Amino acid sequence: MQTDTRPLILVTNDDGITAPGIRALVDAIKDLGQVVIIAPDSPQSGMGHAITISKPLRVERNDVFKGFESYQCSGTPVDCVKLGHHQVLDRLPDLVVSGINHGSNASINIIYSGTMSAAVEAAVEGIPAVGFSLCDYAYHADFEPCKPFVKSICQNILEKGLPDGVLLNVNFPKADVYKGLKVCRQARAKWKEDFDQRIDPNGRKYYWLVGKFINMEMEAADTDQAALDAGYVSVVPTQFDLTSHSSIDLVRDWKM
Amino acid sequence: MQTDTRPLILVTNDDGITAPGIRALVDAIKDLGQVVIIAPDSPQSGMGHAITISKPLRVERNDVFKGFESYQCSGTPVDCVKLGHHQVLDRLPDLVVSGINHGSNASINIIYSGTMSAAVEAAVEGIPAVGFSLCDYAYHADFEPCKPFVKSICQNILEKGLPDGVLLNVNFPKADVYKGLKVCRQARAKWKEDFDQRIDPNGRKYYWLVGKFINMEMEAADTDQAALDAGYVSVVPTQFDLTSHSSIDLVRDWKM
Repeated sequence: MQTDTRPLILVTNDDGITAPGIRALVDAIKDLGQVVIIAPDSPQSGMGHAITISKPLRVERNDVFKGFESYQCSGTPVDCVKLGHHQVLDRLPDLVVSGINHGSNASINIIYSGTMSAAVEAAVEGIPAVGFSLCDYAYHADFEPCKPFVKSICQNILEKGLPDGVLLNVNFPKADVYKGLKVCRQARAKWKEDFDQRIDPNGRKYYWLVGKFINMEMEAADTDQAALDAGYVSVVPTQFDLTSHSSIDLVRDWKM
Repeated sequence: MQTDTRPLILVTNDDGITAPGIRALVDAIKDLGQVVIIAPDSPQSGMGHAITISKPLRVERNDVFKGFESYQCSGTPVDCVKLGHHQVLDRLPDLVVSGINHGSNASINIIYSGTMSAAVEAAVEGIPAVGFSLCDYAYHADFEPCKPFVKSICQNILEKGLPDGVLLNVNFPKADVYKGLKVCRQARAKWKEDFDQRIDPNGRKYYWLVGKFINMEMEAADTDQAALDAGYVSVVPTQFDLTSHSSIDLVRDWKM
């Protein structure tokens, strides 16, 4: 299907193929290679690293992006990467780019994020990958200030590669101008849930998940959250080896 | 709702509240404290760290487990932990135990696993947690040999705790007798996808996700996969700080 010799860049997201964020992303990187879009046909925020195993998947070519090959997929962002890599594309992508997400994926948000999980999946499959997010949930958020950073970061990855098993998690603060870029670590944080309990027309209880973000490292200066709060773009080199290497000896000493 | 003074243990899984694996888990740990079950009302395998944000959640008390307080939830395993902690239970659990999963969650499987994501979520919320999985997908898999290990590991966690942000990923090989237990690291592996393409009655293509597990560290002896292949129970201390600390300096040197 592809006969191009330029770098092959697979673009996906979790807000769905019609979201303004993915259009901004394609616009930012369109000169870096052959861009193919394979994104969910409906919003998939909060899907984490979910895959579709109990029902069939659909993938259909569409013409949402003028001048680019694009597909919509019935599955999750991770499904999009798997289907793209193994079924739609006829060669391994040189880069997978996910986003630009409407809303933060900094700190602990990364583990709930379909956008970042798509980038993680690419890294698992050995493909250099990066996810971009803007700390603004609005549909009509202003992605313009992100574009030069998106392009520069993707250019660097294409030129220099990334270590095996490493991807980048890039977040933009909500601002017209950024102070610069900080390479940093994931902040320790959590969401304090406060379920909104309601009664349906049949008299049965139901809940909406709502929560408040709590940065548990407010004092630390070297985290993504600190960089964003100070007006910088945060870049966190990210991995999927979840081993807590420092705890191995401790648990070995247990009597089990 | 709870007036008990014993340790409070929240039990969940991703195979659903009727799965034999969760019954085996409850049976193994029933003497260690007050056990409350909050599990999905339908199978949620492969849901990863998905949360339910675009539709309401239901949680209903049931009597599936004789002698125990139990609830079924319409959401994902992570939703079960969030709802359990913030809505159902009136005190913080002393331990969250997830499983016993029907099928391996060793190596890269951890990132797709609803069972392990429930345990990860507990750790994010500061609750000691462990996930158990048996490398046998059969509905009537034999969980008996797992039980003494499950009990001993939970007892150790209740007595000694775990470092902040650390949980355990425990996998059992398919065997009648285990050689022992190995504390190890997550193997580098991936799934080689081979989508099964079919045509529906309306003439449209659809795909089933099928794949082959590939251990990319066959030679390494210190991984969970190596331990399982040799007949040992694998225990991986696991964290959710996804920062690739070793890559921070490398990316800092880029011109961006």
